[in-house]
Amino acid sequence: MKRQYAITVIGLGLIGGSMAIDLRRRGFASSVRGVESDPVNAAAAVKIGLVDEVIPYSLCTEGSDIIVLAVPAGAAAGMLPEILDMLSMEQRHSGEEGCRKIVIDVCSTKSGMVRAAEGHPMRGRYVPTHPMAGTEYSGPWAAMSGLFDGKACVICDSGHSDKDAADTVEKLYDTLHMRTIRMDPDNHDMHAAYVSHISHVTSFALALTVLKQERNDRHIFDLASGGFSSTVRLAKSSADMWVPILDQNRDNVLDVIDTYMEEMQAFRDAIASGNKQGIRELINEANRIRRIIR
Amino acid sequence: MKRQYAITVIGLGLIGGSMAIDLRRRGFASSVRGVESDPVNAAAAVKIGLVDEVIPYSLCTEGSDIIVLAVPAGAAAGMLPEILDMLSMEQRHSGEEGCRKIVIDVCSTKSGMVRAAEGHPMRGRYVPTHPMAGTEYSGPWAAMSGLFDGKACVICDSGHSDKDAADTVEKLYDTLHMRTIRMDPDNHDMHAAYVSHISHVTSFALALTVLKQERNDRHIFDLASGGFSSTVRLAKSSADMWVPILDQNRDNVLDVIDTYMEEMQAFRDAIASGNKQGIRELINEANRIRRIIR
Repeated sequence: MKRQYAITVIGLGLIGGSMAIDLRRRGFASSVRGVESDPVNAAAAVKIGLVDEVIPYSLCTEGSDIIVLAVPAGAAAGMLPEILDMLSMEQRHSGEEGCRKIVIDVCSTKSGMVRAAEGHPMRGRYVPTHPMAGTEYSGPWAAMSGLFDGKACVICDSGHSDKDAADTVEKLYDTLHMRTIRMDPDNHDMHAAYVSHISHVTSFALALTVLKQERNDRHIFDLASGGFSSTVRLAKSSADMWVPILDQNRDNVLDVIDTYMEEMQAFRDAIASGNKQGIRELINEANRIRRIIR
Repeated sequence: MKRQYAITVIGLGLIGGSMAIDLRRRGFASSVRGVESDPVNAAAAVKIGLVDEVIPYSLCTEGSDIIVLAVPAGAAAGMLPEILDMLSMEQRHSGEEGCRKIVIDVCSTKSGMVRAAEGHPMRGRYVPTHPMAGTEYSGPWAAMSGLFDGKACVICDSGHSDKDAADTVEKLYDTLHMRTIRMDPDNHDMHAAYVSHISHVTSFALALTVLKQERNDRHIFDLASGGFSSTVRLAKSSADMWVPILDQNRDNVLDVIDTYMEEMQAFRDAIASGNKQGIRELINEANRIRRIIR
């Protein structure tokens, strides 16, 4: 019979909640407990059935095989060393030979997380991961089965995680039907800036641009059609999640914003000077995205 | 019995082809003929059954009740007065009292189109329209039933179209299940810049940004997930369609690009200075798009 794990999810939002659903449903989890500081979200998570029970943060390692840290990136970096400390303390009290418990985080920035655990005696029990899936919605109500199916998950073990821990986490993401990709944390953060973080910044800026015009013109949205909706969709994403990501991944995000603004300026110049051939070349080059994105 | 119309569609791409399908299927068209300069697209349109036959441009008004001009905006502005000339010539030869034929265009820019017909003796037979629907694909293969259902269509008759022509065009878009909105051409172009044209420019620029990075890093797209795909989707749109739109709507598009770049700069400044409260305020403001876009 397949081994089952007692799982504790810290942060019962879209990601944590969706993991809870499928890890239980697909038989990886024998039990799922939750830690959630917001009392409304905590009550909802129990009522919806995302978790068996909600427990205090201070008990998150007790009786758990795997602790999933699924709070926003800022808070997660503070909690990670605390959780590793709890593991150390447990082990001292138990007198057992080695800790077998595993801690993972699911944050969109990885260098800061890895730094937060650096040099910790329990570093080997920590596996940094980033399941690259999501929607623009948040909270336990947004959690859904199948959210991760077919998507990519970056695992940044970089040889600093114990082999058994890395292997178990691989199985966990296999259960979630994710393709796992190994990458070091710095590389991950640079890639994430290009294929995820910049998309959010451009959507936020687009929303702000159109909302500014709306002040003078209440009817502007009568015309908003499919193209606009898909481009601006990510602008619904929450500040709680995105402030720490943009802050922690500052250098990469600024690099990408600068390149992006150069491209916008090139478009502006071509349009302003009536350089149709220039506009055409820019669009033709941009069309190369067709062979990459379905 | 409902009156049926003999329709000629000039330009058998996504928009023209999709109109042909539903106008026939829903009984508005008694026949649909096509004009298409690209021989491959012309052959495909007949084979797929979008049109009964393909005819030369010079015969587009002959035996037609409604001529739909569905070529890219640049070419359309050149053809519109030619088609109105054909109507004038037909009428002189026929000796009938008044022309009852109708010409519509479906371009994404309207001021230039209206200017192209200004002062023409047949101006009353022309109704400028913009059915705001589409996908990022083009050509007769991209045509589909239902493309227009539930979307908005701007009609810029501004009192310069004959009443019977405007009424018939209203029925045509009713058949396509579109909400029609009356707007003058200048207002339309300003609105379209905000809710459609800027979305395309930001998508093109995003594609260019990421493709530039891809030159150094072939694996960057392994991580591209849902958020990126939806934001960059419009970057697949064709240069043939978008060069004339961005060129014809230059002043509005430049205004919106400038506002947009100010918003991007505000984000950049807040991120660069580590001003988390500032990032939070920008995101919270952008989140107001939630109440407008589902």
